[in-house]
Amino acid sequence: MLRMADPLGEPDASPLQGDAAAAKAEVGEALAFVADELGKRGEAAGGDAQAVLEAQALMAQDPSILDDVHAQIDSGVNAERAVYTAFKSFQDILAGMGGYMGERAADLGDVAQRIIARLRGVSAPGVPESDTPFVLVAHDLAPADTALLDLTKVLALVTRDGGPTSHTAILARAKGITAIVGVSEADKLSDGDVVVVDAAAGVVVTDPTAEQVADAEQRRVERLAAASAPLTPGTLKDGTLVPLLANLGSPKDAAAAVELGAEGVGLFRTEFLFLDAPYAPDVASQKASYKELLEAFPGKKVVVRALDAGADKPLPFLTDKNEENPALGRRGLRALRHHEEILRDQLTALAQADAETEADLWVMAPMVADLEETVYFVDLARELGIRTAGVMAEVPSLALMADQVLTSADFVSIGTNDLTQYTLAADRMLGTVAAYQDPWHPAVLRLVAQLGAAGKAAGKGVGICGEAASDPILAVVLVGLGATTLSMTPAALADVRAELLGHTLDEARAMAQAALAAPSAAAARAAVASVSSAS
Amino acid sequence: MLRMADPLGEPDASPLQGDAAAAKAEVGEALAFVADELGKRGEAAGGDAQAVLEAQALMAQDPSILDDVHAQIDSGVNAERAVYTAFKSFQDILAGMGGYMGERAADLGDVAQRIIARLRGVSAPGVPESDTPFVLVAHDLAPADTALLDLTKVLALVTRDGGPTSHTAILARAKGITAIVGVSEADKLSDGDVVVVDAAAGVVVTDPTAEQVADAEQRRVERLAAASAPLTPGTLKDGTLVPLLANLGSPKDAAAAVELGAEGVGLFRTEFLFLDAPYAPDVASQKASYKELLEAFPGKKVVVRALDAGADKPLPFLTDKNEENPALGRRGLRALRHHEEILRDQLTALAQADAETEADLWVMAPMVADLEETVYFVDLARELGIRTAGVMAEVPSLALMADQVLTSADFVSIGTNDLTQYTLAADRMLGTVAAYQDPWHPAVLRLVAQLGAAGKAAGKGVGICGEAASDPILAVVLVGLGATTLSMTPAALADVRAELLGHTLDEARAMAQAALAAPSAAAARAAVASVSSAS
Repeated sequence: MLRMADPLGEPDASPLQGDAAAAKAEVGEALAFVADELGKRGEAAGGDAQAVLEAQALMAQDPSILDDVHAQIDSGVNAERAVYTAFKSFQDILAGMGGYMGERAADLGDVAQRIIARLRGVSAPGVPESDTPFVLVAHDLAPADTALLDLTKVLALVTRDGGPTSHTAILARAKGITAIVGVSEADKLSDGDVVVVDAAAGVVVTDPTAEQVADAEQRRVERLAAASAPLTPGTLKDGTLVPLLANLGSPKDAAAAVELGAEGVGLFRTEFLFLDAPYAPDVASQKASYKELLEAFPGKKVVVRALDAGADKPLPFLTDKNEENPALGRRGLRALRHHEEILRDQLTALAQADAETEADLWVMAPMVADLEETVYFVDLARELGIRTAGVMAEVPSLALMADQVLTSADFVSIGTNDLTQYTLAADRMLGTVAAYQDPWHPAVLRLVAQLGAAGKAAGKGVGICGEAASDPILAVVLVGLGATTLSMTPAALADVRAELLGHTLDEARAMAQAALAAPSAAAARAAVASVSSAS
Repeated sequence: MLRMADPLGEPDASPLQGDAAAAKAEVGEALAFVADELGKRGEAAGGDAQAVLEAQALMAQDPSILDDVHAQIDSGVNAERAVYTAFKSFQDILAGMGGYMGERAADLGDVAQRIIARLRGVSAPGVPESDTPFVLVAHDLAPADTALLDLTKVLALVTRDGGPTSHTAILARAKGITAIVGVSEADKLSDGDVVVVDAAAGVVVTDPTAEQVADAEQRRVERLAAASAPLTPGTLKDGTLVPLLANLGSPKDAAAAVELGAEGVGLFRTEFLFLDAPYAPDVASQKASYKELLEAFPGKKVVVRALDAGADKPLPFLTDKNEENPALGRRGLRALRHHEEILRDQLTALAQADAETEADLWVMAPMVADLEETVYFVDLARELGIRTAGVMAEVPSLALMADQVLTSADFVSIGTNDLTQYTLAADRMLGTVAAYQDPWHPAVLRLVAQLGAAGKAAGKGVGICGEAASDPILAVVLVGLGATTLSMTPAALADVRAELLGHTLDEARAMAQAALAAPSAAAARAAVASVSSAS
């Protein structure tokens, strides 16, 4: 393993030498350089990484921060110190906010480091160079580093900081890099230590035995083989079909998903259409976006989720930013029902796009609690011309009432992230309770089992569209619990496809039973591993 | 019915007449008068009401508000207007914070009204006078009004505003007044309208039929009879014992609970020992408080809950005030485990108090997720000398894993308020999602049924200590689902005792089955009413 270069030290507080105007000009050049560099890296990376890097580029040019830097230079502070202090104060504010915003503090710190490096005329701290592949260990990875990792060199990532929703975790998943974040022991590792990163078990093995190293090497070879395997439909060893679908956040991502063998879309998030807008977009502009999406999947299933605003995705025209617990607030369908005109416009635009394209459009509502809300959504969707209408299973009550819900809904799709958050009553954005955010927890799996049984009884589909489906072994367990389709970030399709081929439906069910009986997420993983290796 | 007198109008913005110093003196007198009056009302009311009124008295003397009033008078604003504006700006801040703090805004508005009334020399707005009993309808009730309601006159309360956690709702429950809050149609009622308030169904019937009025009168007679009935142990019609316990927040409240026939304590909240303190109190002072409590219940069961900090009860030495969703944060046992010394001290103090008294002490942990956390708490409690250790069922995962949890815990106690909040993923403090906070929801009842079944299989107790147990019909349903004890605010004991006597265990089970099969909370109430009247 190799460790990330340590960050630049804190600039000294020596007084400004020379002219304030010259110092400001120097800072201005450095800001522009860094913003430009981040923008270019974003373009090179594309996808999710691009959005993150472009956000960083904007941070570099934030006028409030620049005002602060100028004011400090005017009061006689040197340029590096002024940049450091100005960014630090904004970082502290973000960190103090905790949760999602708190995790953005690292991004801001990274931007400051790059600017200071430019002012000093040194290279920005970043990923170490090596001729041979290595496991990269770091306190935390800045998005710019993660996005440009050389995938032929980096075997896996291990970071000390960061929760499951940190950029490192999100981008690593999007790029298909094995990563374990939030490893408190990471600081004890030194350059050259031999480690095995077992993402399936969620552990970093130090001083591994020869056998453990051989196993890891074997898994790596299998992953490489999976990545280049033919793009067959998702199938168990006994021929049971389990369609493998893609989670997408924008029509632009459709082509890449098709290339990786997505058999359709299991979760199309529509928030991108509404973010940063003062009002909801009109029917015509929504329709154009939906058509672009549907045209990429002729004859294929495309599941679109109605706007899921609230919690980490507040929208000024739809949600209340003063909620004390936004994750438990008026979000998802609750907010749409309160502003029904927005929901009506969206469903109308979807129905119009569907009529002019060849895809099989399914539409589902987020944050649905029970049959009453299901009937409300399904009836409205049908009235507006949607043929197939279903609901997300994220709120525990929906899973508990699955038998009733499926009398109305055409299908359910399980959002394992939120379902885990609510079932364990632990904020999935909060680092101090990150350990609860594990979809392997048997309580979550028991709810999935209730949904699976209800789907089977009703003869209706039960999809998975949370992160859980991208964990190959867990994906098999979910099929064993009754999931009929799996939807995931496209980078995960190859691994899941390969793993499904290794198990029959009976084996998957036996693995599921072992997981349900376990007392914890870790025990469930271990129990499934032992059943799986026995079969 | 009678309507509360409308509040005083907004004072005009005419300039100050006369001397600023004189105006300030007048305001000073009015502030002192109102603070004094609120303090006296508090003493007269006692209990929960006293704490609320004393908090209002402090608001009346808040130095920041007074500074603001003085500054306005100095700039030429008249005294009434200055008071109005100063309180209004603080009210707006609180309202903007939403949730619990937002609900405190009404308290501040009430204080301002009282001060302005004093300055004007008129009586403060408040409860109307009447020679005959009446239903009181109001936008909202200030704590000062609720606390001093003449119980021989007020048949029931109906308010337009306020969620389930508003002071009106809390104090009405503590005083045993029938109350329905958050009735949006309340504004349509006028003085003299005949209404029937059916708290069991949660509805206000306008223009009731003669039969509905007779039914209501009959229920009222039954309530009065229940209140004066002998204090027998909680028992079903067939003789099945269902011990009726009290929820207490301080040792001072023990005597009143015993007087109302509490057979012990089902939930003793220990937060009062820790609030407003910079550090946790030491073992000796905790022990003294616990002894005072236990001595009031010789030979009786007393269930003490370990410190439940976090969410609406932050403690600077234990919880992180920057969590984005504190209800899903590091609260309850999670926080205690992170500061184990605080938990060790509390368990040690409890064990010492137990050794020197005759009560049967049970201790339970709040916010427990699964078997692993249960084992942690039970083992630690046993190590420190606690004989009976259990867990609260508030997190949905605990209910889902009840079969495993009861292999370690000696008992579980269901906190229906939080269990409902998490199962429906709706903040119980937030007005816009208040409709979800209904423990009659069949999803919640299905989790109670799982806990009841697990308790029966393990031969261990399953108590209820949330608000649900104080709803007489729901209490019977909960027994039908497997609850073995019911704990509630002492004022509710008589009604629940009377209702239990009207049903056999088989009838309770039939009612429970009807509720489980219903699609919504309202449907569950209706289904149970129809089963119940048939039996």
